[in-house]
Amino acid sequence: MSSSYYMGYEKGDVEFVHTGYGKDAVKVLAIRREGKHHYIKEIEANVQLTLKTVKDYLHGDSSAIIPTDTMKNTIHALAKLKGIRTIEEFALDICDHFLTSFQHVRRAMVYMQEAPWKRLEKGGIGHIHAFIHNLEATRFCEVEQIQHEPPRVQSGLKDMRILKTTQSGFEGFLKDRFTTLPEVRDRVFSTIVYAKWRYRTPRYVNFDAAWNTVKDSIIETFAGPLDSGIYSPSVQNTLYGAQCLSLSRVPEMEEIEMIMPNKHYFTLDLTKFGIHENNEVLLPVDNPSGNISGTLRRRPASKL
Amino acid sequence: MSSSYYMGYEKGDVEFVHTGYGKDAVKVLAIRREGKHHYIKEIEANVQLTLKTVKDYLHGDSSAIIPTDTMKNTIHALAKLKGIRTIEEFALDICDHFLTSFQHVRRAMVYMQEAPWKRLEKGGIGHIHAFIHNLEATRFCEVEQIQHEPPRVQSGLKDMRILKTTQSGFEGFLKDRFTTLPEVRDRVFSTIVYAKWRYRTPRYVNFDAAWNTVKDSIIETFAGPLDSGIYSPSVQNTLYGAQCLSLSRVPEMEEIEMIMPNKHYFTLDLTKFGIHENNEVLLPVDNPSGNISGTLRRRPASKL
Amino acid sequence: MSSSYYMGYEKGDVEFVHTGYGKDAVKVLAIRREGKHHYIKEIEANVQLTLKTVKDYLHGDSSAIIPTDTMKNTIHALAKLKGIRTIEEFALDICDHFLTSFQHVRRAMVYMQEAPWKRLEKGGIGHIHAFIHNLEATRFCEVEQIQHEPPRVQSGLKDMRILKTTQSGFEGFLKDRFTTLPEVRDRVFSTIVYAKWRYRTPRYVNFDAAWNTVKDSIIETFAGPLDSGIYSPSVQNTLYGAQCLSLSRVPEMEEIEMIMPNKHYFTLDLTKFGIHENNEVLLPVDNPSGNISGTLRRRPASKL
Amino acid sequence: MSSSYYMGYEKGDVEFVHTGYGKDAVKVLAIRREGKHHYIKEIEANVQLTLKTVKDYLHGDSSAIIPTDTMKNTIHALAKLKGIRTIEEFALDICDHFLTSFQHVRRAMVYMQEAPWKRLEKGGIGHIHAFIHNLEATRFCEVEQIQHEPPRVQSGLKDMRILKTTQSGFEGFLKDRFTTLPEVRDRVFSTIVYAKWRYRTPRYVNFDAAWNTVKDSIIETFAGPLDSGIYSPSVQNTLYGAQCLSLSRVPEMEEIEMIMPNKHYFTLDLTKFGIHENNEVLLPVDNPSGNISGTLRRRPASKL
Repeated sequence: MSSSYYMGYEKGDVEFVHTGYGKDAVKVLAIRREGKHHYIKEIEANVQLTLKTVKDYLHGDSSAIIPTDTMKNTIHALAKLKGIRTIEEFALDICDHFLTSFQHVRRAMVYMQEAPWKRLEKGGIGHIHAFIHNLEATRFCEVEQIQHEPPRVQSGLKDMRILKTTQSGFEGFLKDRFTTLPEVRDRVFSTIVYAKWRYRTPRYVNFDAAWNTVKDSIIETFAGPLDSGIYSPSVQNTLYGAQCLSLSRVPEMEEIEMIMPNKHYFTLDLTKFGIHENNEVLLPVDNPSGNISGTLRRRPASKL
Repeated sequence: MSSSYYMGYEKGDVEFVHTGYGKDAVKVLAIRREGKHHYIKEIEANVQLTLKTVKDYLHGDSSAIIPTDTMKNTIHALAKLKGIRTIEEFALDICDHFLTSFQHVRRAMVYMQEAPWKRLEKGGIGHIHAFIHNLEATRFCEVEQIQHEPPRVQSGLKDMRILKTTQSGFEGFLKDRFTTLPEVRDRVFSTIVYAKWRYRTPRYVNFDAAWNTVKDSIIETFAGPLDSGIYSPSVQNTLYGAQCLSLSRVPEMEEIEMIMPNKHYFTLDLTKFGIHENNEVLLPVDNPSGNISGTLRRRPASKL
Repeated sequence: MSSSYYMGYEKGDVEFVHTGYGKDAVKVLAIRREGKHHYIKEIEANVQLTLKTVKDYLHGDSSAIIPTDTMKNTIHALAKLKGIRTIEEFALDICDHFLTSFQHVRRAMVYMQEAPWKRLEKGGIGHIHAFIHNLEATRFCEVEQIQHEPPRVQSGLKDMRILKTTQSGFEGFLKDRFTTLPEVRDRVFSTIVYAKWRYRTPRYVNFDAAWNTVKDSIIETFAGPLDSGIYSPSVQNTLYGAQCLSLSRVPEMEEIEMIMPNKHYFTLDLTKFGIHENNEVLLPVDNPSGNISGTLRRRPASKL
Repeated sequence: MSSSYYMGYEKGDVEFVHTGYGKDAVKVLAIRREGKHHYIKEIEANVQLTLKTVKDYLHGDSSAIIPTDTMKNTIHALAKLKGIRTIEEFALDICDHFLTSFQHVRRAMVYMQEAPWKRLEKGGIGHIHAFIHNLEATRFCEVEQIQHEPPRVQSGLKDMRILKTTQSGFEGFLKDRFTTLPEVRDRVFSTIVYAKWRYRTPRYVNFDAAWNTVKDSIIETFAGPLDSGIYSPSVQNTLYGAQCLSLSRVPEMEEIEMIMPNKHYFTLDLTKFGIHENNEVLLPVDNPSGNISGTLRRRPASKL
């Protein structure tokens, strides 16, 4: 009996704030065939359940435990039974399954991300069954549902690295004794975008369209018009701009969190080598990196 | 002006839930010399500040921004001015600096981890200035402080991988149509421990002693007595046991979160090769992995 | 004197087979501006020099050493002085610099890879100064030059992950007592292509065109015609086919090495859940993975 | 028929320089029980075979192919049948199996590495069945055997990170127009050691003892006496010293390759913050890093 090992510790002195267990990194490739045309979705999911009981933790009584191996099997089976239209819908199916099948599950949570497979093509025509990994941005979602409550759906985009060579500056900031950064009106701006947004309700949302709209909105805010760009006075301001544009274009969106690290590129000082006026050769710096974040939500009054 | 890009979007429709910016992966090696004997601490820190204003986000007005480059410089300077006794104390120093120096900082947060340098030794005698990276567990901390409030200190341990070849089982769990896992009384149990705990107050805490006590408590709960071990009926129960033992031994601890993935080792079926009764050769499985978590806190009534 | 530490070891008993030192992970972003249109190349290079002397190793005599810090500076300066047209040409410039500047350098070697920046575009029109990381395949090269000899140039492609859902099988293989793999006429075939090829001479080669031709040849051999695909009887045979097609299309190519791991996708057996005839839901397997390689060269007689 | 896809390409124009296929990342945990005392070895292996035929590549004729799935099964079965005393002996067993069982295998190659499990202990007494991952250095080996020839065995050590705070300098090096590095008599020296050595013959070698001797020799050469250290005039010289000491202590060793990157730590200039004479706070630099290598062998005349 494991509890004998820490005897002397009085019962009733402690309480659980959180319990939960599940399976991480459950993978599935789902193929849909329409004649000779094949469609694929490859996903990786983490699922976690919280039970109404904690007797498994307290007493080693496993009778209420749905084994994590069973969770894995369930995801495999549901992929066949339900199919995977979007990761959001499949994550909703998984939450629904566990809450419907087991009344003693208090809460189900699913994180899911999609492998960036893109149909091979030539001259604008797609291949019927061959694909290539094309990573511009990783699509993911987080779905959480409490027993007898509606699900809470968040979609996300990460790993999207973008860079512009001009139309960015940083001036007028606070200076103290530790400040050595010079003010600059023209610098390289590069970031790896993370964005996650919550829908008011998952009903009637076109998740594919919403994801593409957010991706486009972030890119447009960052890059500006094709022939001129747009000036960014700070990462903070560009982040806010991307959030506003996303909220204005996706009415079902309630709240959006964004993180935009500042991946620094420093102009190299080559004067010591007799090379003056360098503006072409820069040093990419891996770390440290700036890290700018913000979560913006629609005001209650402004909700549709 | 970047905001012109998303014109048509009405002002006042949105509000910030969170803002914050800082510097990630700021690194320092600090050397302390006592005669010919040298002592080192190598740390990596993420610092994030939240200002009372959001005019930097809204209007591109950077006048209140403490540049992330300045934050990096500040950490470098404080390492010299204050020294690094423990990561917890250094993180407290950093929070204190920003909140004391700038009244418009609402909140400071520091994550810090320590490189696992260990003094080289021979026959129990240490080398005066040479060290080796010895990773058994990574030590980290998170310190958060709101302006005019006391700091909130959490210490943590991660990446500690342990394994036992017996004294573990999993039986009596719930079965449904998707369950294929067999019940077992004797299995390999391996996990990569993550633990993070919060102190009631950072005052008078011996952070080194507390960290070592938690590490030892987790190992003792997992492994049991040297000559017999201790039976684990489930990861859940072992996790709870380790939390109880830690809380009982570290009175300053208020709450402890733990995550113990179940890194599976499956006994290989070699019967198809004419080899029966295999119990010696197992397959380590990288993914999927189980993931068991729990956060336990001291009840108000039981506080010291 | 460090050599006193292993005294007793007779001089002349040992000899060097290889020496070399250099700088790894030297990074540069080079911007070229044509009016308002900006072009970028971001590269990462490893450079290694072998000197004619080994007195630095033997006696701690550093007088012939070109510091690795100087090598880094040199790459930065050459990026400005020479520009970066292609990674192959820039690597040739670097080798040439060290062999021309220092007669006591016996050999220079440069590995270089390019970050996959792609110009942002909309409706087929490119942005003047904004880019996105788009990883389909990493381009790299290795250039080696011995003093007073012509350089040896290899170009390469890696990290290209492709998948087809059909037109692949594996049958008629050897069976022994340890074989359990079933023969199959229709399976998923996925691989992460690595290819590296050597040019007869670097003169007059259009490195950009050659790289794209090899990439296209591998994809065509793998995927086959858009509307029908092409059958692969084994990874070995497809690898050879891609090599032949590349050699036939790039006459300057002398030799091509390819590695095509077999990233397995196993059809899940769902019969235990009452689901029969599953052919849609597969399990992606990270490890172990097959690993098929081959190096093919043009026969002397067949050289142009 | 895949070859039809690149028709027009004349047969006989090309020839194979190398072919080979195998399985990567085959994992095994082997448990040995002596009463209640348990011993473990966890290994990961890559195996590659080269056949005498290339008809699988040329014609898609798979009749000579030993499937990579069979190779995985074979390693699992051999772990049970032979046991794993050392990774070198197990790799030898695997090569022997394939060359003995199949006359059409020309060459077998096995890379194997061992997980750094260390028995848990308290007060110098070990636990009977519980272990902790303790990474100081990764042990690996490479065994290659050609049909009808003796095997070629190499052992190796990697990922061993060491640091000393003094007794290292770098002076008297060559300067050119791109040199900005200052000469220094006292610097931090840190490296991540890679060493791989070849045995004259695998017979009668105590692989465990040899590995520990090399590890100790490298550490001793780097660190010097416990109470004084030893001066390193350059990484090159220290690398050579470690090789000489290893060769002198392990008579079965024929040749040793070492790579010692120079992981830079730069003393921070804090004068701009009004802090002078800083010698305690340094900046760890991830990249770029120096990279010093050398392969030393015993001269024929000096062989035992």
